[in-house]
Amino acid sequence: MEAQRTKSVAVTILHNATIVTMDPDARVFRNGGVVIERDAIVAVGQSSDILHQFSSLAHQIFDLNGQIVLPGLINTHVHTSQQLGRGIADDVDLMTWLHHRIWPYESNMSEEDSYISTLLCGIELIHSGVTCFAEAGGQHASGMARAVELLGLRACLAESIMDAGDGLPASWAGRSTDDCIQSQKELYKKHHNTGDGRIRVWLGIRQIMNATDGLLLATRDTAKELKTGIHMHVAEIAYENQFVTETRKVDHGTVTHLEKIQFLQDNLLAAHTVWVNPAEIDCLSRGGVKVSHCPAAAMRMLGFAPIREMLDAGICVSLGTDGAPSNNRMSIVDEMYLASLINKGREVHTNGTTDPTALPAETVLKLATINGAKSVLWDDEIGSLEVGKKADLVVINPSSWTMVPLHDR
Amino acid sequence: MEAQRTKSVAVTILHNATIVTMDPDARVFRNGGVVIERDAIVAVGQSSDILHQFSSLAHQIFDLNGQIVLPGLINTHVHTSQQLGRGIADDVDLMTWLHHRIWPYESNMSEEDSYISTLLCGIELIHSGVTCFAEAGGQHASGMARAVELLGLRACLAESIMDAGDGLPASWAGRSTDDCIQSQKELYKKHHNTGDGRIRVWLGIRQIMNATDGLLLATRDTAKELKTGIHMHVAEIAYENQFVTETRKVDHGTVTHLEKIQFLQDNLLAAHTVWVNPAEIDCLSRGGVKVSHCPAAAMRMLGFAPIREMLDAGICVSLGTDGAPSNNRMSIVDEMYLASLINKGREVHTNGTTDPTALPAETVLKLATINGAKSVLWDDEIGSLEVGKKADLVVINPSSWTMVPLHDR
Repeated sequence: MEAQRTKSVAVTILHNATIVTMDPDARVFRNGGVVIERDAIVAVGQSSDILHQFSSLAHQIFDLNGQIVLPGLINTHVHTSQQLGRGIADDVDLMTWLHHRIWPYESNMSEEDSYISTLLCGIELIHSGVTCFAEAGGQHASGMARAVELLGLRACLAESIMDAGDGLPASWAGRSTDDCIQSQKELYKKHHNTGDGRIRVWLGIRQIMNATDGLLLATRDTAKELKTGIHMHVAEIAYENQFVTETRKVDHGTVTHLEKIQFLQDNLLAAHTVWVNPAEIDCLSRGGVKVSHCPAAAMRMLGFAPIREMLDAGICVSLGTDGAPSNNRMSIVDEMYLASLINKGREVHTNGTTDPTALPAETVLKLATINGAKSVLWDDEIGSLEVGKKADLVVINPSSWTMVPLHDR
Repeated sequence: MEAQRTKSVAVTILHNATIVTMDPDARVFRNGGVVIERDAIVAVGQSSDILHQFSSLAHQIFDLNGQIVLPGLINTHVHTSQQLGRGIADDVDLMTWLHHRIWPYESNMSEEDSYISTLLCGIELIHSGVTCFAEAGGQHASGMARAVELLGLRACLAESIMDAGDGLPASWAGRSTDDCIQSQKELYKKHHNTGDGRIRVWLGIRQIMNATDGLLLATRDTAKELKTGIHMHVAEIAYENQFVTETRKVDHGTVTHLEKIQFLQDNLLAAHTVWVNPAEIDCLSRGGVKVSHCPAAAMRMLGFAPIREMLDAGICVSLGTDGAPSNNRMSIVDEMYLASLINKGREVHTNGTTDPTALPAETVLKLATINGAKSVLWDDEIGSLEVGKKADLVVINPSSWTMVPLHDR
C-alpha cells in the first residue's frame, strides 16, 4: 500500500525549454527540462538527460517548444487592500493623497472589502507572473488570507500598524502599543503557516511618523520571538527625515534613528528607502536589511532611490509594485522595465549623462526572483529553480509580438 | 444610378460608449455614439440622438456596452527599420550602441529587411492602439511604404539622412548634400500621398553631428517647396551641445544654432530635445517647433527633457516610442505611463520633492492624440473625434483586470 502510494505520486516533466535557473551559478539550460514531484522540483538539467531518466516515472510530459521557464516572480511590496482604490488619487499632491484619499478609504474597509481587494490584486499579479508577494501592511489580514488561499499564491501578510501620528482617521487613532502587538500575535497564531504553508504572517510598521519607539522595539523583539519578518516603509520622502531629525534628535533621518535603536536587522524588509545617505546605506548593509525598490511609486511620488549604490554595498534589493493608487499597474514585469530605465537615467544627475550599463537585464531579473525570495526570508524554498525547492515557476512565450526577434539570449 | 450609389455608402454606428473626443472643448459623451461614413466621422453625440437620427441609414450598428472610444493614438518618433534589431544593444554604453551595434545593423539592411521590420513594428504599434506614426528616419522608405500600405496605418515616412560625420559605415560615408536632397525628392514623388492618402513623405535629418549647414538649409527650403515636414533628432545628449558649441561657434548648443540659421519653423518635428535651456525653449516655442518626447529612451540613454516647462511655454509636445533597441517596448500606452511617472519624478531635482500633479492624465492623453496629430501636421484629419475628420479610433475595454475598478472617469 505504501509502495503503491509512492508510485502514484504526481510527476510532471517540462522539457525542450530554456531554463533560467537563477541558482548561485546562474545556470541556463538552452534546451533544458524540469521534473516536478507534487509541488517540488526533483531535477533540473538538459532536456535529453531529463527525458532519459524520468520519462518512465512521469504522469505528464509537456513539450514547451522552446519557451522560457523562470522562477515565479516575487513582488516584495504591495498594498493588496488598496486595489479597490485604484484611480481615487491620481495626479494629486502627497498630503491630499494620504489624508484625503487613502486613509479615509482604508479606514472604512470591512474584512469582506479586504478579501475582494486582495483577490482582484492577486489576479492582476498572477497575470504578470507573480507567484509570491509581501503585503506592505493593510487592512484585515484575515480577509487577505482567505483570498490568498483561493488564489494559490504565496504571501507574507501584514497589517498596517500605527500607534501615533497626527491626522489619523478616528477608527485608527489612539491604538496602544500593546494592542498593536497583541492583535498581530493573534493574527500570527491564526494564519501563520496556513494555506498548505503558503501563507506567513509578518509584523507591520506603517512608517516612523506613525510609530513610537516603544512600538518599534516591541515589534523588533516580537519578530525575533515569532521568527518572522517586519515590513516597514522607510525614508520615503524628504520630509520624513526632517521630521525624524527634529523629533528623535538624530543628525540625518529614519535610517540613522533605526540604527541607533538597533532596529536594523536581517528580518527587516524596508520599502522604498529613497532618502538615504552613504552612511545610512552602510548601516542597512551591515544590518542585512532588505530593500524593496518600487520604481513607479518612486517616480510618481517619492524620488529616485540610490539602487546602484545599494547593490554595490551588497544590500539585497528586490522589486515591488506598491499599491494601485500609487501606480495604477500591478505588474512586476512593468517594474522590471522601470527599474532598468530609471536606474540608468538617474545617473544623469550625478554624472551629466545616463549610464545605460547600470542595472543590466541579468541584475533586474535577480531583483525579481532570488533577491525577492531572500527579501521575504523564503529563499530556502523559492526564488530559483533548484532541486528541493518548490516548483513555483512561470513559462514565457518568446514568440509574442512584443518579444521578436530574440537576439539577446 | 448616382442616387443608388449614395444610398449604398457604408454607414456604421458605434453607440452606448464613453466617447472621449479630444476636441477643442475636450467634450466627453458618457453615453455617446459616433457615426462613420466610409472612413470619415459624420456625427458625434449622445447615444440616443445618434440612434434616433442615423439608425435608418446604418449598415452596421455596434453596441459597445460602455466601452471607451478614443482617437487613434499617434506615435511621433519611431525607427521602424530598427524593429529587427531589438535586443542587439541592451545595457551597453552609448558609443557602443551607435557605432558598434546600430549603424552596422542599419547600414546592412536591404529594402526587403526594411519592409519586414516595418511590418513587425506596425503590428506591435497597432496592438497598443496606434493608428498613425512618424518614422524617425530609417532605411529604404520604399520598403516601409509597402508595409504601411498593408498595415492600414497612417505614416509620415522619412529616410535617415547624413552628409557628414566621423565613424560612418562605408556605405553611408561621403554622400553629397545634393544627393541627399535629390533622393528624398524622388521618394516624395514616388510615395507621397499614396496608400489612399495614408502615406506621406517627410524629409529627414539624422542629427546635427551628421549634417552640414548646407544640408540643413537645403532641407528647410525643400520642405517648404514640397509643403511637408522635417523630422530630426535635436539636442539628444550633452556631448551634442558641446560638439555644436565648438564646431558652430554658438554659446549653447543645437537649438541655439538652429535658431541662428533660421531652421526652427512650424514644420519641424524635433525628437527628444532633452538638453535645452530656458532661452532655447523660448526659441522652439516662437518657431512653432513640435517636440516628440520619448520617455523610455530618455531614461535609458539621454536624460530627462524639461517637458513641463515646454508645455508651459506653449510648445506642442507629443509622444514617441523611439526604436526597439532604445526601448524594447513599442507601446505608446507604455510611453503614456512613463511620461506621467518621469515628469512627476523629474521635479525632485529642482524642488526636492516629486510633483505628483505634473502632467495629469488629461495632459498625457492630449500628448498621445491631438498633439500627436499637430506634430505630424495632420490635425485637419486626425487626432480628435470630430465631424469631418477620419474615423481613426480605438476602443478600450474598461473591465479588464488591469483597469477595474474605474473611479476616475
